[in-house]
Amino acid sequence: MRMSRMLMPTLKEVPSDAEITSHQLMLRAGMIRKMASGIYNQLPMGIRVFRKVEDIIREEMNAKGAQEISCALLVPAELWQESGRWDVMGPEMFRLKDRNGRDYCLGPTHEETFTHIVRNEITSYKQLPLNLYQIETKFRDERRPRFGVMRTRNFTMKDAYSFDADQEGLDKSYDDMFDAYTRIFARCELDNSPVQADSGAMGGSASAEFMVKSEVGEDEIVFCSGCDYAANIEKATSVNHESSTEEMKEMSEIETPNVHTIEELQEFFKMDAGQFAKTLIYYADGKTVAVVVRGDRDVNETKVANAIGGAVEFELASEDTIKAVTGAEVGFAGPIGIKADYLFIDQEVVDQRNVIVGANKTGYHIQNANFGRDFEGQVGDFRNVQEGDKCPKCGQPLEIMRGVEVGHIFKLGTKYSESMGATFLDQNGKSQPIIMGCYGIGVERTVAAVIEQHHDENGIIWPLAIAPYHVVVVPVNVKKEEHLENAEKIYKELEAAGVEVLLDDRNERAGFKFKDSDLLGIPMRITVGKDIVDGKVEFKLRKEADKEIISVDEVLDRVKAEFAKNNVKLG
Amino acid sequence: MRMSRMLMPTLKEVPSDAEITSHQLMLRAGMIRKMASGIYNQLPMGIRVFRKVEDIIREEMNAKGAQEISCALLVPAELWQESGRWDVMGPEMFRLKDRNGRDYCLGPTHEETFTHIVRNEITSYKQLPLNLYQIETKFRDERRPRFGVMRTRNFTMKDAYSFDADQEGLDKSYDDMFDAYTRIFARCELDNSPVQADSGAMGGSASAEFMVKSEVGEDEIVFCSGCDYAANIEKATSVNHESSTEEMKEMSEIETPNVHTIEELQEFFKMDAGQFAKTLIYYADGKTVAVVVRGDRDVNETKVANAIGGAVEFELASEDTIKAVTGAEVGFAGPIGIKADYLFIDQEVVDQRNVIVGANKTGYHIQNANFGRDFEGQVGDFRNVQEGDKCPKCGQPLEIMRGVEVGHIFKLGTKYSESMGATFLDQNGKSQPIIMGCYGIGVERTVAAVIEQHHDENGIIWPLAIAPYHVVVVPVNVKKEEHLENAEKIYKELEAAGVEVLLDDRNERAGFKFKDSDLLGIPMRITVGKDIVDGKVEFKLRKEADKEIISVDEVLDRVKAEFAKNNVKLG
Repeated sequence: MRMSRMLMPTLKEVPSDAEITSHQLMLRAGMIRKMASGIYNQLPMGIRVFRKVEDIIREEMNAKGAQEISCALLVPAELWQESGRWDVMGPEMFRLKDRNGRDYCLGPTHEETFTHIVRNEITSYKQLPLNLYQIETKFRDERRPRFGVMRTRNFTMKDAYSFDADQEGLDKSYDDMFDAYTRIFARCELDNSPVQADSGAMGGSASAEFMVKSEVGEDEIVFCSGCDYAANIEKATSVNHESSTEEMKEMSEIETPNVHTIEELQEFFKMDAGQFAKTLIYYADGKTVAVVVRGDRDVNETKVANAIGGAVEFELASEDTIKAVTGAEVGFAGPIGIKADYLFIDQEVVDQRNVIVGANKTGYHIQNANFGRDFEGQVGDFRNVQEGDKCPKCGQPLEIMRGVEVGHIFKLGTKYSESMGATFLDQNGKSQPIIMGCYGIGVERTVAAVIEQHHDENGIIWPLAIAPYHVVVVPVNVKKEEHLENAEKIYKELEAAGVEVLLDDRNERAGFKFKDSDLLGIPMRITVGKDIVDGKVEFKLRKEADKEIISVDEVLDRVKAEFAKNNVKLG
Repeated sequence: MRMSRMLMPTLKEVPSDAEITSHQLMLRAGMIRKMASGIYNQLPMGIRVFRKVEDIIREEMNAKGAQEISCALLVPAELWQESGRWDVMGPEMFRLKDRNGRDYCLGPTHEETFTHIVRNEITSYKQLPLNLYQIETKFRDERRPRFGVMRTRNFTMKDAYSFDADQEGLDKSYDDMFDAYTRIFARCELDNSPVQADSGAMGGSASAEFMVKSEVGEDEIVFCSGCDYAANIEKATSVNHESSTEEMKEMSEIETPNVHTIEELQEFFKMDAGQFAKTLIYYADGKTVAVVVRGDRDVNETKVANAIGGAVEFELASEDTIKAVTGAEVGFAGPIGIKADYLFIDQEVVDQRNVIVGANKTGYHIQNANFGRDFEGQVGDFRNVQEGDKCPKCGQPLEIMRGVEVGHIFKLGTKYSESMGATFLDQNGKSQPIIMGCYGIGVERTVAAVIEQHHDENGIIWPLAIAPYHVVVVPVNVKKEEHLENAEKIYKELEAAGVEVLLDDRNERAGFKFKDSDLLGIPMRITVGKDIVDGKVEFKLRKEADKEIISVDEVLDRVKAEFAKNNVKLG
């Protein structure tokens, strides 16, 4: 492509409304333009990269025997009513009516549609396993769209769903997808870690997120410093501290006027936060849930929600609810005598001795409370892991980092096949629900994550496999016939060989053109300048500082060598 | 792909709700499945064909220097308000609100978005011309979705928009697209005719529709039997009949009780319909429009609407409006003394002598009325062409056929660039509106049209260029090792050569498998049966009845020869 004819609006300045590097560079390189909050249009330099990532996904999905289909983006409400999600989905789901007043959503994900397709076509175990996928637009009305294409309202997702006759089949489908995802992200040169993720209260028995470590990530990931343990904070666990061997002391009520928070308690009692146990009250689908964790811990709401079998509405209880449950003002909740529907005690609290808890009485706390003797409850892991906690696999200290989720694989089980009646006849002629898995990759977000990892102060540094063009040929001065003519010759030679080439035929200074090619991140640059009289051109890799002077005749071989080195197929 | 593992739900029976052949065959071949009225999901055998048509479109668009982009499907109302179309679009446009109550539409077409992109990036004539396109989902809430994917509510359209500095530029862009479309449809082996189409009241100076003749088409196309003249009936003209040389007779009012229609008048006066002139009253955006055509003619509403500069609401007037305009009951309207805002007289009426018209008086008609002497009005072409009319180019008789519109190209002019402020500085530094063209192809509809033209009683007969797979290898009996093993060998050999191959490894009778491969329309079939002991297999083209017995060693060459013969690139 001749750059003089391209819509390639590069920007010299950093756009003021772009906070993170990938967003800034995608705008500056003319890949995307915002149309409304969380809604972007993709320009030529952008769509070429997105399409290459899609092609890599497609190849690796097909290699696992997955079959591509395409679902309508408008989904009738009836399907979501069948699965029970129509009423459960919040304002994140776009809803609309057609001219006859019928309800539809814009698919935010497509479990319902895929289950619907499969229940109509699959009747026998002989037709299983099956893995179907699509690479299509999804819609989510995010409360806070941000960071460019990292979190938008109109985006491309590859979503796949596996259908198996038994658990072993699901395990294999899941492992296949794990492999495929590993290969996909490796081909995009995206350094990532598959981490254990929460699989929810229902059905799901395993789940992994493919996380890219990044300060701009919206997820917290727990990594072990000593082994390969990695989990989303929602799911992560740590080994419990040892049980205290201290003697149980006599329990007593203490007047603590105006002392509500852990900080105020520490000040009042002159004790560490770890010697308190705090009780939080949640409201979940009409029920009240009290959770007791050590004073220096945070409650893990995902674990609590899972413990009650999942909840549509799950939030900290209102002041009125707290008063009703504790019989006291806010700030004095405790496990002794509390009237919640559920009472969950974190294991660490069981291991504590002589802790201070709220008295469920305004202005009072209780000293020397002990689990077993003074209060009971359902014991489990209800806390967030903290930096420095010990790894549940090897005992080494855990670290916490932020990450961007680029992929997610999930053993769904029979949630959708049961609610929507997707069954098959097994070898004994018995009807069984199909066992499902689901597998997603965010296309634009993957590209943004690649840029976060592959750039320098001058712009993007594309991995060859997903670069919008492989090579840019720059004649130093287009007014000089020998520059332009030879550049054209190289351009045509490379194009004929299947290389994707830009010819920077713009009447601009060489420095200006180099700046653009660095910003665009084209992996190879061939400059045709004064040395052309000796049949020489300059060859430079974007990712390296050094230039080589090579003969015009060597250009194609030099370019091909890069394809071979990077294991990218040419043409 | 192994057919035993494919989601390829072929149907033996003709689905009862599918009226036309392409719809029946797309369902029977397992290409598509309906999810709701006008909403289809695409299964593996379907998406492969749609994708190939998209790739052909992409190649031909790129060959003309057009650049692919991708616009968000959710479009903010503000853009459509700027262009003035937000209030103009009827219920065909899906509208919705986001969580903050902001208005959006699901893009039915994207003039607004493309104009918005270009106005933000283009400032100078040096950046023009530009042709941008996308191949994306469009949404139209059709009143009557029907004929499978011929008319749906969620479909794929390639839409392109050209941006030029002057009219010559637009002419070239338009001609380029004409060429590209001709090549695209030729590569799909779609016999089609570009026909002149209505370009509306505003801006557009030329417009062509690429029409596939078909009884199931929703458009009427006028073809000349003697030359290449072809036009949509909305646009088509015919030469006028010669002026009558009859003397003008004295005009007189005649009592015609209960005589309202042309048929009743013919009966009453014992005269041909051609001796009457009928007057129809329309209501257009608050104005009344009277149109007078010969009694045996139909009013062409498109021509009338264009004559008043276009109208959002355009319909036959209500009884009350007719009474107000004519001062009489319905059935007695005439050009003499009518009180409409517009009075249009078709040229043929000017050429008539001594016609009978309504008297604008209940129960009366007027005899021997003559244009010029008894009534006046704006003269023009306001009638539909009829079969047998004379061609405006060569005078030979015109024919009328039904057609399916698969593509449409259109000189838009400055309608959007003016309303949305998409301007550029010309060579003299003067700001000018960019001159636009727009160009669409319906992807799924093109595929359906191909099936309408390429099928027989056994199923689809795909052109090689867009077949879902090129070859099917059929082992006659998968239980016989020599059948299955040799079939596998051929399958792998062809696949390695870049041929897209199905291996029918299902444990079914050969006849059953042949029926499926005929239904699916795979262009080449290789059957491995008893002759394999002599190293021979059967080679059969779907489109021909004859089979050839060839040696196993010849298979790849025989397949390659078909690619060469059909001018399709392999791999």
